[in-house]
Amino acid sequence: MTPTAPPRGRSSSRPAPDVTTGRPVVPSSGRLAPLGLAEVRITDGFWARRQETNRTATLAHIEHWLDREGWLANFDAAAQGGLPASRRGREFSDSEIYKLLEAMSWELGRSPDAELEARFHAIVRRVANAQEPDGYLSTMFGRPGQGARYSDLEWGHELYCQGHLMQAAVARARTGHADDLLVQVARRSADHVCETFGPDGNQGVCGHAEIEVALVELGRALDEPRYVRQAALFVERRGHGTLADIEWGRSYYQDDVPVRDATVFRGHAVRANYLAAGAVDVGVEQHDDDLLVAVARQWERTTAARTYITGGQGSHHQDEAFGEDFVLPPDRAYSETCASIGSVMVAWRLLLAEGEPRYADAIERALFNVVATSPAPDGHAFYYANTLHQRVPGETASPDVASRRAESSLRAPWFEVSCCPPNVARTFASLAAYVATVDDGGVQVHQYATGEIRASLPSGAPVHLDVLTGYPVDGRVRVRIVEAPSDRWALTLRVPSWSPTAVLSVDGRERRVPAGSVAVPDLRSGSVVELELDMTPRFVQPDDRIDAIRGCVAVQRGPEVLCLESVDLPGGRDVADLRVDASVPPREEDGRVTVRGVVVDHPARDAWPYVPADDAGRTNGRAGTAGTPAVEIDVPLVRYHDWANRGPSTMRIWMPVR
Amino acid sequence: MTPTAPPRGRSSSRPAPDVTTGRPVVPSSGRLAPLGLAEVRITDGFWARRQETNRTATLAHIEHWLDREGWLANFDAAAQGGLPASRRGREFSDSEIYKLLEAMSWELGRSPDAELEARFHAIVRRVANAQEPDGYLSTMFGRPGQGARYSDLEWGHELYCQGHLMQAAVARARTGHADDLLVQVARRSADHVCETFGPDGNQGVCGHAEIEVALVELGRALDEPRYVRQAALFVERRGHGTLADIEWGRSYYQDDVPVRDATVFRGHAVRANYLAAGAVDVGVEQHDDDLLVAVARQWERTTAARTYITGGQGSHHQDEAFGEDFVLPPDRAYSETCASIGSVMVAWRLLLAEGEPRYADAIERALFNVVATSPAPDGHAFYYANTLHQRVPGETASPDVASRRAESSLRAPWFEVSCCPPNVARTFASLAAYVATVDDGGVQVHQYATGEIRASLPSGAPVHLDVLTGYPVDGRVRVRIVEAPSDRWALTLRVPSWSPTAVLSVDGRERRVPAGSVAVPDLRSGSVVELELDMTPRFVQPDDRIDAIRGCVAVQRGPEVLCLESVDLPGGRDVADLRVDASVPPREEDGRVTVRGVVVDHPARDAWPYVPADDAGRTNGRAGTAGTPAVEIDVPLVRYHDWANRGPSTMRIWMPVR
Repeated sequence: MTPTAPPRGRSSSRPAPDVTTGRPVVPSSGRLAPLGLAEVRITDGFWARRQETNRTATLAHIEHWLDREGWLANFDAAAQGGLPASRRGREFSDSEIYKLLEAMSWELGRSPDAELEARFHAIVRRVANAQEPDGYLSTMFGRPGQGARYSDLEWGHELYCQGHLMQAAVARARTGHADDLLVQVARRSADHVCETFGPDGNQGVCGHAEIEVALVELGRALDEPRYVRQAALFVERRGHGTLADIEWGRSYYQDDVPVRDATVFRGHAVRANYLAAGAVDVGVEQHDDDLLVAVARQWERTTAARTYITGGQGSHHQDEAFGEDFVLPPDRAYSETCASIGSVMVAWRLLLAEGEPRYADAIERALFNVVATSPAPDGHAFYYANTLHQRVPGETASPDVASRRAESSLRAPWFEVSCCPPNVARTFASLAAYVATVDDGGVQVHQYATGEIRASLPSGAPVHLDVLTGYPVDGRVRVRIVEAPSDRWALTLRVPSWSPTAVLSVDGRERRVPAGSVAVPDLRSGSVVELELDMTPRFVQPDDRIDAIRGCVAVQRGPEVLCLESVDLPGGRDVADLRVDASVPPREEDGRVTVRGVVVDHPARDAWPYVPADDAGRTNGRAGTAGTPAVEIDVPLVRYHDWANRGPSTMRIWMPVR
Repeated sequence: MTPTAPPRGRSSSRPAPDVTTGRPVVPSSGRLAPLGLAEVRITDGFWARRQETNRTATLAHIEHWLDREGWLANFDAAAQGGLPASRRGREFSDSEIYKLLEAMSWELGRSPDAELEARFHAIVRRVANAQEPDGYLSTMFGRPGQGARYSDLEWGHELYCQGHLMQAAVARARTGHADDLLVQVARRSADHVCETFGPDGNQGVCGHAEIEVALVELGRALDEPRYVRQAALFVERRGHGTLADIEWGRSYYQDDVPVRDATVFRGHAVRANYLAAGAVDVGVEQHDDDLLVAVARQWERTTAARTYITGGQGSHHQDEAFGEDFVLPPDRAYSETCASIGSVMVAWRLLLAEGEPRYADAIERALFNVVATSPAPDGHAFYYANTLHQRVPGETASPDVASRRAESSLRAPWFEVSCCPPNVARTFASLAAYVATVDDGGVQVHQYATGEIRASLPSGAPVHLDVLTGYPVDGRVRVRIVEAPSDRWALTLRVPSWSPTAVLSVDGRERRVPAGSVAVPDLRSGSVVELELDMTPRFVQPDDRIDAIRGCVAVQRGPEVLCLESVDLPGGRDVADLRVDASVPPREEDGRVTVRGVVVDHPARDAWPYVPADDAGRTNGRAGTAGTPAVEIDVPLVRYHDWANRGPSTMRIWMPVR
């Protein structure tokens, strides 16, 4: 990768604003233009199944828990004057309702459903009833007996919550309902925010970024430049220490350094990503290349030095934060699901602005290895934190109890802080929007899934593609040109960085293509393009500055990171006992990947564990020491996103080398 | 080490209770009997200097900050009815005053000082004035406008604070002032606790163990078996889930498993150690060998699998807690100073009960490498957490500001949670009591420092030894028998486990002795025993289950762990850049230890850091790759306890091997 250059070659023409195409992010300029849920449909395969589970199981699951925990009822209590006595949940519980509304909006945009529509409206009415006459909306602040409005910007989450309200309204407005009650509520909230925090108003920022990205998108959706300007104000105000210093420092909420001066993402990983997404949006709308380049450079370093192989981010449990560069312990990985969703938001915006395929690589990595890892197959339980190394089998979470813990148990149905489940839901519901883009030169396919792309180029020329693939089990992606644009165009396919080589076939003519992207020009209707990616499972080794995994390898197959689970080891052995033979490449047979290794016997845990280096062979119980026959075995690995689906077990992605 | 056997061979006879010898811990039975501050004096060398700084600088420093932060004034406000309006500090701030009183008591016991005595009495009077008529004492609870007494056992720290009050009274009582006002106050507090939490009373336990160890010792000091029985009740009640479940689980306060059923220390590391110390005391006093063996086994596993090479404990910042076995990341080590002080308390009690030298080894390790690391040379600043790897130079702490952070800065003068400074002070003040013991067979010297031992064997026979040593700079320890007991006896010297060989010389006759301990029988007055320990600096390597330091070595010299600081590297290099050549042993010249290594150039931080294993040599910037000449250099190491005394720098104890 080379240092990021300023964005070049912005498309000069854009399709007319369209409020029915279901595009979550619609920049006014940029290298690539997004397509929406009405233009890209995922119809089968890995993501289609997850979308179906999300729609048919998770949405109702979330609604059930929001009701059960009383977070929805807070809005009724607010409307009826029952607060704060009857309020339940944390400061930010309102936002979970808004994220559910956003997920429902995208789902209704994908495919109508009268029953879902009715549930959606019922919730919106309860929310709307709680809004104050001046547009302010929070069940936590501002009423007699509650804290004053914006009296606790550090922890109050009022702007954060209203930001998620706006995001939900964006989803509704962009799926053909720009005059809906939800949109009206969000508009009043946004007007209130602009009045309160405008150039001459309250000069504060919210402890948790989110209002920035939300105001830009609502401004774009409703054509209200004032909202975008307010977002720019919030972005510029941050980093000047207006929030209180706390135990973890102001970096926790990125209030330590102005956004355009920072060199890396730091502090709370969700906050950092949400802020960066908003800063890209502001940079694009204000044609502020300096800001855009600053965020892109921060993204580069963060990707290179503060990101797990899974795409997960955040190695501190204490403050849910990024560690210093190369502090990436697998066993203490926090890797919050929401942080990876935030990283997808950032990478998607940078991809639209700059067009570089490495952003799409990052989206793929986070989606397959963190976002897909969070939910259980039935869509009724979730990981909040996504460790890369489970040393002690986790507890089975009760399906009937909201977990107090973000960690240490298997997937749980709900959490006392339950940001992740509805965040996964809104992401899955809008997933098709991250698959492809257009520009003056044609169509770009970034993510591979069976489905259909029906769109128009900026020139207005229609294009229709069918995609057929067994991805990521199979590395072959087949694109049939159903309708080609009449003018010159190209189909551009991403060649993921993990595929050292790929074979492109155009109407049967094959050639090898390198990682990056490949453009196929002037395809006609009826043409077929096939891309065959190299799905050979491979050992991967880390930069040796990542101390915590020195001497270890991981196995990756295509976009998926694999892992070792103790349930697959013989004789009650633990994942700590395996030493991998890295000279024998991973083998794949009948869809099963195995690695060769030896099982080592460790001494009992009663000896001082630090010994003179020269005595180590004798006293340290290493593989191959006298009395410890090294038994070679082949052990199967599983896809990381499938782990912990067979009950409690220990697990590791990074395996020590023999 | 073998599994711990039940304690054997208890001394049948004991010296008559003596309230003037200054013994902090006086079990009624056990393998070894302690000696006190009036019996063992450290007169020169490493610890004498620290004791002197503690006495002349740190005590006044602490008193200044207790005054400045208003924590002392809380007692006045309590007496005058000014609470809670004027109260300052956290729930446990009272305890810091008590720890200062304990430190002052031991210091006054070591050597009188009229001015210090006057300051001591002034504080005691302020404390006494705040005590309620029924003996309850807390500035945080129980008054109008405050929480009700014992309404928050999880976090209120009322019993914890009163426990430290009792410990201070023990110090006062054992140094010739059994009728002092402080002792009376503590007695009333203990009576109140027994009345409130007795067999038919409140069945709770305190969220932070401390009352257990305190009640036993006060009971021993004042001959009040009721206090010991109350401590036993508290020990037995814990582990049954009477405290609330919290995010980190009830293991945080060891309320997950009964003490006698647990297999390892877990949860908050200070709490775990304080509880274990109290459980040993209870086990000894109640002749409960099962309890004693249970704690000893937990200690074994904790030492083997949950302790840093420094003796530090606790790898979680979030909950200041032990991690799972072998979770010992150096860069995220919490290793709280107080946890190591707690570990000294536990090991000392086990040493008295069982007599095994490995407990004295552990005390030495924690004292030299954690407790000695905390204070600055001037005694005016402290580390709260003691990381083993500093990746980014810490901020210089303001000498005028109480730090909000337990980490990330250099030593700070005070903390918002300031448990560590007064804990160091009371430990240094009573340090001589951990040097030597007696039993029916003679005298045992466990820790080496220049000084004098004047005591009586259980038979009443007097013994007087002079110890002369330059330890730990020099490994030679010379013991002169000034007065030998008239009956048969032996002088037993510990041979530390880090000394693979040692030479013992008795009146000039030399022989080699193995690690463990060596008994020299029937020495006469005028005899001289010399022990020469092997102080060669050595590479140490970790058990390979400690993933975080795989492929690394550390250097230890005698009891001291060494480290690499960036200020000692040429050309602005960072400690991340050194790869050590472990085939060249560390060299010592003129008191300076160096290791040989190569400095590696790392690529810029902008590349995805996980690469196919076979590409690694080409892309991964490792030492010796093309274009990176491997320059060999010799770099000096410093004693870990001396680190960060030359301004901000990066530092690491564990160094990757070339």
